[in-house]
Parts: sequence; structure tokens; C-alpha cells
Amino acid sequence: MRLATLRDGTPDGRLVVISADATRYLAGGPALPNLLAAIENWAVAEPALAALADELATGAGELLDPALLAAPLPRTWQWLDGSAFGTHGELMQIAFNMPPIETDLPLMYQGMSDRFYGPADPVPFGDTAHGIDFEGEFGVIVDAVPMGTSAQDAAAHIKLVVQINDWSLRTLAPIEMKTGFGWIQAKPACSMAPFAVTPAELGQGWKDDRVALDLVIDWNGQRFGQANGRAMDFSFVELVAHAARTRDLVAGTVIGSGTVSNPEYATVGSSCISERRAIEIIADGKPTTAFMAFGDTVRMEARGQDGTTPFGAIAQQVVQAG
Amino acid sequence: MRLATLRDGTPDGRLVVISADATRYLAGGPALPNLLAAIENWAVAEPALAALADELATGAGELLDPALLAAPLPRTWQWLDGSAFGTHGELMQIAFNMPPIETDLPLMYQGMSDRFYGPADPVPFGDTAHGIDFEGEFGVIVDAVPMGTSAQDAAAHIKLVVQINDWSLRTLAPIEMKTGFGWIQAKPACSMAPFAVTPAELGQGWKDDRVALDLVIDWNGQRFGQANGRAMDFSFVELVAHAARTRDLVAGTVIGSGTVSNPEYATVGSSCISERRAIEIIADGKPTTAFMAFGDTVRMEARGQDGTTPFGAIAQQVVQAG
Repeated sequence: MRLATLRDGTPDGRLVVISADATRYLAGGPALPNLLAAIENWAVAEPALAALADELATGAGELLDPALLAAPLPRTWQWLDGSAFGTHGELMQIAFNMPPIETDLPLMYQGMSDRFYGPADPVPFGDTAHGIDFEGEFGVIVDAVPMGTSAQDAAAHIKLVVQINDWSLRTLAPIEMKTGFGWIQAKPACSMAPFAVTPAELGQGWKDDRVALDLVIDWNGQRFGQANGRAMDFSFVELVAHAARTRDLVAGTVIGSGTVSNPEYATVGSSCISERRAIEIIADGKPTTAFMAFGDTVRMEARGQDGTTPFGAIAQQVVQAG
Repeated sequence: MRLATLRDGTPDGRLVVISADATRYLAGGPALPNLLAAIENWAVAEPALAALADELATGAGELLDPALLAAPLPRTWQWLDGSAFGTHGELMQIAFNMPPIETDLPLMYQGMSDRFYGPADPVPFGDTAHGIDFEGEFGVIVDAVPMGTSAQDAAAHIKLVVQINDWSLRTLAPIEMKTGFGWIQAKPACSMAPFAVTPAELGQGWKDDRVALDLVIDWNGQRFGQANGRAMDFSFVELVAHAARTRDLVAGTVIGSGTVSNPEYATVGSSCISERRAIEIIADGKPTTAFMAFGDTVRMEARGQDGTTPFGAIAQQVVQAG
């Protein structure tokens, strides 16, 4: 099952189910106004949405206008982003010129969740001197998770999977990181690809509680990376359990994988510019790739070996704020 | 003007205006269902609420049942907590056995905002070995703040002031802090005192964009601290500007002061147990005060020199989760 949100003038938008070829949709009734409401009452929402998916499979539905697609969750109560790809962590410490992080626990910070940009929204920034960078990653949306839920029990709470661009400001990041307080200024709003999909919908693309798909990234039309999501050191169920150790997770919480990164970066590339810069530092002693400029575009699309693109594409342009 | 939220079975509760003696209330119409909705449309809400306050001043209103009081904002989209009291920062680094934080910017992390406990709610924790601690502080609620707003312009966005207990788990905190990612497990849900007040309502208690009131804290009925909120190194307008540097702040964002702390801690005490332990380390080489046990109580109430208590009191008990 694939879900999307159409802009309808409300902050949460209108929840719809999408056909297999992503050309048609069906909306639920007043009991399913938006995805946040659905995830709060998933036991009731899921069969109703599945029935709409069955209708779509028979050819029913209205024509989808991609220009109306918002983020599947345009806002939610909580966004907790992990950093579960070890290669990303190692390269970022080189990029930031900081010592390795010594921990055997998942890395995770809380980010802003009151706005997720839609897949084609222009993304405003104030200053290119802040080091504008993309970060391609995956995330899961959970229903209410009680405090103390184990990784084993967390699996049943993962209702949907999403694809995210975690926009980052790299010259601000190490300044905030050195305080130990995490990031405020270095982590503005993220973007989401248009379709939130059930783990079952991913088929072989959901393996060991990870997204086993290549995340294909193009920067200004040039291939930048196609790292695979299966290389997480901690799986999504482990990230959910980590997040829920001392708090109840509110329904609609999004848990992120962190930037997709593979040890084979020489052949598959990267999912953020900072990693490429770190690789340049390792090779040449200094970075040569600049961060993004106003007008730059980035496209991100997870692809299965069969060529399917379950989340659809993020395709955005960086613009000057104000 | 003082506002409160009564439990009515909805997640956001019912917004009411409170009489000067905190014994009566009046609710707004359907256009003012809850505080989050009011702060999203403050230009319309503020005069309507002020009219209710005028009615209350004539003796109108219904009797307030304190047992119905929730947090003034039971949930909101964003909670950004500063650490603006230099004395607190210095003592915490001693408590955590970490080097001083070298920065000339405000310290700030993003915390969970999907739940704020009401002033008398029992607060569940899983394990006393996590080092259960209270943190008494103040916060402001802003309306929508555009990215890049200056400290000077931020003042107009501060609509309400609140009093907060930022519950913290001290044995988990340094582990997370050393990663640079900030706190997830060490910072579960906070509590709020019952009344959110306009800066004007505080009178002399709102000075230089700070809360110039003693925060009187009792732990298990024993006086623990009465530090004054005026000692912030950065004022609330500076904290708002810091938070808004690279993001629009959504209406309803709460910005916290961090734990209230004064250089005169030998006479005024502290607003968290960790500080007292750090003071013991300085004096004796080791801490002697233990963290909270199940069944412990904490009471926090800001008091003016005239004895007024504009926010009302937080009075809670720590209980075992599950």
C-alpha cells in the first residue's frame, strides 16, 4: 500500500491511496482526513485504506496531479533522526575535523518536525556560506510506542516507510556539535519523497528491518550516489527501541536512518556532499567539491533491482530565502 | 492575562482565562478551542481573551477545579530549550566530569514537545538508576517567527511566559552529550506550571526580556532553591533569534531558559539536584546527595517580591512506570 498527501489548504493535507502505477488515487472518508489522524488510529485506518487500494487495483480512482503532492506527513509531533551507517559517521568526523565518536549505542538527535517540505518544493536558505548540503536517507513512521518497548516488539509499530532529504548546514554543524547539545541551526526542515509505503509493499526491498534499495541521487543532473540502505549498523527496530527507552513515542513519530552510506563509496558514491569532501580530504588532503549554490537542484529516488521506485522522487531546487 | 487549559478529553484541552485570584475562569467560544489554536491566530485571539479577563475582573466566571488543570500547552510542535544561566553550565560540566563548553553562542537543544505533563500529574520513570532529576526553568511561547528574525524584532513574538520542570536523567545525559547529537533518552517529557501569562501580566517580574522572579523549589517538602530568573546570560529575545536563524519558528514554539541558576548558589540554592552534587564535588571531592527515588515529590513556584505566584505551582510525584 502506498499513501500520499494532497495539498488542500489545511496544514495536514488530504490523505490518499495511490495506484501501483502512481497515476491514480482514492481518498478516504471524513474518518481518514490526513495521515497523522490515520496513524493515530491505524487499526481502523489500515483496513479502510487497504480497501481503497483494492479498488485502485481494479482501475478505479481519480487522476493524480503530481503538482498537488505534499510530503506524506507535512508535519508531525516528533522527528528523531538516527545515524546508523557507520561509513557516514567515520567520514563526517573527518569532514568536521573531530575525533571519532566512541559509543556502542545508536546515534540520534531530535530535529524539527513541524514542517516537512513536499517533494518538489523549492527550499529556501539564507546564506550559502552556511554550507548547504543534502542528506539522502530513509525513515519509518510508527504508531504509539510505549516506553521501554524492545527492538523485537518495535517491529509491529513500524507502519510506514518514507524517503527523506535531511537538509543540513555544514559550516554551522560542528560548532553546535561541539557543545554536545545537538543541532538547531545546522538542521532546518527536511523534505520527504511523495509516497509513504507499508513495509510489505517494499517486498524484497524491506529486509532485516532495513530498506534494501539503492538511493539514487543526482546533483544538478549529474549522478552523485547510489548507496544501498541495507548497510545500517542498527536496524530500524533497534532505532525505535533506542528512542523509546525512556519516553512513550507519540503516534506519527518519524525515525530516520541517517545518511545512507556504504563502505564501497568509491564505486557507489555518497548521499551527501560532506562525505564526498571527506573522501577528497583522505585522498588529497583537502576538499575540492563546494557545497550547494542557489539554483542548484537535487533529485533522490530509491530504486529496486527491478527498476521500481516505491517512494517516488524528491526533485528540488535550492533558492534564496526572503 | 493568565491562561490555562482544562482537561476535556481532547489532546489539546480547553483554553480558559483565569481570574486574578485563580479561583474562577471563563472559556472562549468555538473560535478559541485551545491555546495552540489561539497562538496560531493571536491577533484575533488576544483581544477576545482580554475581553474575558475584563469580565472575570467584574466577578464573573465559573469556579476553577484545580484537579482539571493540564499543562497550558499539553502538546506543541516544537520545544527548544536553551541553557542561558552560566552558573548552571559551569556546574553541570563539573557534575558530568566534562571540559568546559567553549562557545559564545547560546546553548540550545530540541526536546520532545508532543507531551507536557500537567502541574500535578504523577511522572513515570522506568529506573531510578538513570538518575532522575528535576530542572526548574522558565520558557516563552511565540507566535510564528520568520527565519532570520533579529533579537530586537523577536520581542514582539513573545506572547506568553511559562514555568517548566525539564525532567532529566543524569546518568544517561553525559553518554549522549559526548556524541554531540544532544539528548534523547536523557530528556523525557517536561512538565508545566498551570498558568501561561503575558509578559505584561508579570509587571516588574518581566525585565530585560527575562523573568525576574525567584523560582522557589521544594524537594520532599524541604526548601531546595530559590534562584532568580534574571541572571540569564542571553535573554529570551536572544534565544528566539538564535533559534530562528535558519528556520521559521512555528506558532506555539516554546523556548526555554535552561535551569535557573545564580552565582550566589551558596545562599539561594539550586534548581536541580545535579548542581547541588557539583557543589558538593567542589567542596568535598564527591557528591553526597542522591537523585530522586520513586515516591519523591517536587514543588516549584515562581514568586514575586510581593508574594504573588503568577504561574501557579508545579507539585508532582515521581512514580515507577508500567
